[in-house]
Amino acid sequence: HHISVHTFRCSLHRCTLQKYVQTEYAFEKCPPCSVFVCEWRSPEQLKDLLDLELREGGEAHPQILQRCRDAIRYSVKTGHPRFFNQLYAGMDPYSLVGRFITEAINPSLYTYEVAPVFLLTEEAVLQKMIEIIGWQEGGDGIFSPGGSVSNMYAVNVARYHHCPDVKVLGLSALPRLVMFTSQECHYSVAKAAAFLGIGTNNVYVIPSDKRGKMIPAEFEKQVQRAKDEGALPFMVNATAGTTVLGAFDPLEEIADICERHNLWMHVDACWGGGALMSKKHRYLLQGIHRANSVAWNPHKMLMAGLQCCAFMVRDKTNLLQRCHSAQASYLFQQDKFYDVSYDTGDKSIQCSRKPDAFKFWLMWKAIGTKGLEERVERALAMARYLAEEIKKRDGFRLVMEPEYTNVCFWYIPPSLRDMADGPDVCTTPYPQVAPVVKERMMKKGSMMVGYQPHGDKANFFRQIIISPQVSREDMDFLLDQIHSLGMDL
Amino acid sequence: HHISVHTFRCSLHRCTLQKYVQTEYAFEKCPPCSVFVCEWRSPEQLKDLLDLELREGGEAHPQILQRCRDAIRYSVKTGHPRFFNQLYAGMDPYSLVGRFITEAINPSLYTYEVAPVFLLTEEAVLQKMIEIIGWQEGGDGIFSPGGSVSNMYAVNVARYHHCPDVKVLGLSALPRLVMFTSQECHYSVAKAAAFLGIGTNNVYVIPSDKRGKMIPAEFEKQVQRAKDEGALPFMVNATAGTTVLGAFDPLEEIADICERHNLWMHVDACWGGGALMSKKHRYLLQGIHRANSVAWNPHKMLMAGLQCCAFMVRDKTNLLQRCHSAQASYLFQQDKFYDVSYDTGDKSIQCSRKPDAFKFWLMWKAIGTKGLEERVERALAMARYLAEEIKKRDGFRLVMEPEYTNVCFWYIPPSLRDMADGPDVCTTPYPQVAPVVKERMMKKGSMMVGYQPHGDKANFFRQIIISPQVSREDMDFLLDQIHSLGMDL
Repeated sequence: HHISVHTFRCSLHRCTLQKYVQTEYAFEKCPPCSVFVCEWRSPEQLKDLLDLELREGGEAHPQILQRCRDAIRYSVKTGHPRFFNQLYAGMDPYSLVGRFITEAINPSLYTYEVAPVFLLTEEAVLQKMIEIIGWQEGGDGIFSPGGSVSNMYAVNVARYHHCPDVKVLGLSALPRLVMFTSQECHYSVAKAAAFLGIGTNNVYVIPSDKRGKMIPAEFEKQVQRAKDEGALPFMVNATAGTTVLGAFDPLEEIADICERHNLWMHVDACWGGGALMSKKHRYLLQGIHRANSVAWNPHKMLMAGLQCCAFMVRDKTNLLQRCHSAQASYLFQQDKFYDVSYDTGDKSIQCSRKPDAFKFWLMWKAIGTKGLEERVERALAMARYLAEEIKKRDGFRLVMEPEYTNVCFWYIPPSLRDMADGPDVCTTPYPQVAPVVKERMMKKGSMMVGYQPHGDKANFFRQIIISPQVSREDMDFLLDQIHSLGMDL
Repeated sequence: HHISVHTFRCSLHRCTLQKYVQTEYAFEKCPPCSVFVCEWRSPEQLKDLLDLELREGGEAHPQILQRCRDAIRYSVKTGHPRFFNQLYAGMDPYSLVGRFITEAINPSLYTYEVAPVFLLTEEAVLQKMIEIIGWQEGGDGIFSPGGSVSNMYAVNVARYHHCPDVKVLGLSALPRLVMFTSQECHYSVAKAAAFLGIGTNNVYVIPSDKRGKMIPAEFEKQVQRAKDEGALPFMVNATAGTTVLGAFDPLEEIADICERHNLWMHVDACWGGGALMSKKHRYLLQGIHRANSVAWNPHKMLMAGLQCCAFMVRDKTNLLQRCHSAQASYLFQQDKFYDVSYDTGDKSIQCSRKPDAFKFWLMWKAIGTKGLEERVERALAMARYLAEEIKKRDGFRLVMEPEYTNVCFWYIPPSLRDMADGPDVCTTPYPQVAPVVKERMMKKGSMMVGYQPHGDKANFFRQIIISPQVSREDMDFLLDQIHSLGMDL
């Protein structure tokens, strides 16, 4: 390693400090901000460093302590203010305390008798989220191990709602079922169709407009196509906050079509659900109260920590229970001395289940609904700032104006700017820029941001803003870094 | 609350101490052993105590600290040496450290770039578990959020193996698929059949013998029945360690039948897999190396902490990837600068995924394979001790000799012992004994043990032994307590 001493002026706290750092670049924030986001090692190097092998004998405590240090050192610091790589980031201290408590208590949420506190806090969180969605008559829900699993729940309850026989008889006894989703939806919708036996061919994909939103007229055409084919259309997956572009499907118009054709309306708001907390931005999900089910992951925009994923249904007839129950007599005894309606484990497809709602409940208690709202509004304001900065700078181009906190943009190195002046500028040139810049930033460890090709568009960066620790200085740093890492290309 | 002062002689450490305790009974262990297993409150009481409501404003730190204390106080102490209620128990300190680390780092296991340490430790643990299963050519695997989900994976890969078209075309394009399992299997097998669109009617249930083991001849009869009906039999779920009785299906004979009929052999060893760690007891799973897939939860007998659930396949042709992948271009870019075969997230049905293997890896490093073996052998020896004690005591009757650490027994209060002298003693009388004793032990908080009816057998206790902290004194205490709580019935 190349180690050298640098003097900093911290960009966040304005303090001056000295620090030993690796690499030729000095960091610009005080500890803990100056910790690397990652300390890159190749898989082969890291295997050697970690000594992965599991042996007959155990190891002494100092050795185990060193293993812990190494695991931490070589892990990506996802709570770092410059980790922008995924749809989650940051670290809320209340949530972390909640997680330490639940890890130490080690509960499993099948029954009230073994997890009384965690079943009640889960119920309280779900009821509040349902209120925020706007289901005035209430609803039901369950926390699941990931938004992908929540979307699977949606498919399963939707088809059970249409054909309750499916639970017992299976799909081979039914007509061909068809579901709908936009081309911009999360890939878990296809995974759900495959896993649940529907088949990916029976997911009819609806074109989206230039902003990434499902086109309602195209949706209705696809419904008609399925009917003409003699298939049974049963549900649509609308997306509130798409993965790459952060687009919101037009929920009111989708709800109208669902009513006309008797379709289950599921909203995958895993990412965009956070906007519901903001009175200013919740218009993005206008119409969500008309959905039959909603998936919403507080571990994303609301920083509850992985995992924290609610699946909720508007139904009040115990649909989750009827659809998923297996009535195990060793667990869900009916002769218990308390009200067994609190034993909610049989609503789930899981048996052991982690208490993912508790950390969110504790954080919510600590910062209040108002605190959650402020965080969301701050993240959106920061995304707006970044978009404006991108427009001001040479060599940066927005893919589109952000509606949420996905800021998608290209970086064009000086040597390519001349050829990048036409109207098709960003669909053609140099898809290798983003991968090379990404490689350099990871090897340096200064930050992490994702990139991807998308439809006809060559690789672009997708900057995601979540954490309240992220400042305007971080946005400036991001653009400066990308330029300094890629200007020679 | 009734609070009084008692003087104890700790049964474990032989020290004398005074303590304020609730209830009329004194506890017999020093702190921390004298902590209650649970402090029972009804759902209504607990709702008031916890103040569940989520409000506009946040709360000050002292209030949040009190909420943490309350959450801990009213939670069941599943790591307590007298928590015998589920198929998990105890607390390993190395695992807990691993969990604190991963909660603080907050990784998600999609790609090497965001979770390098945790993907490599997962792979190392899987390869070692595969070696222990006895797949000499290796295999593949993934950690899942629960044994139920692992069993779903098994069903999905088994049907994909038989009919790769199912992923794209769905079940409506296929003949009726039929799977097999014993009457003693875990309820997740039925949940999997419902969720994956196969239908619970297409799970053909095979009778088990008196010891709870699948009867191979009956299995083959059911296969023939499915074939005669024109259905397509595709897999069997064999259970190694059933939930209630702790029975092991005869894997060698089941493997023979699978070979004759070209069936996928899945072994649900979620609970019984722990015995593989013991050279003395691994004969219980004789033949598991012939399985096509295995589910094994180190969070149960091996105390890795919830959740830690491996699903493994013997296949070496990338079946998990082919069966589950959706190739999201924003996550699994192919133009990355490292070997993207380490980006294993697309094998999974999840997108976000917790690093459940790391805590197990750290614990294994600390105590070694030998340490895991000793724990398993100690738990089995303790179960043997308890079974012998039960045979010696009036009013206690074993349901059957335990093979594993499920010790199933009835308690018969003195007033009922006369009428309980016939050969059918335990199938008829007084199913309310266990529920009443359970209610009393929970309200006292002294211990927790499960009970259930099973087939034609009235409610009996199911004592599960796992933790190395459990002593012979705890076994004696269990029987003494049940007698003292139920002798007046």
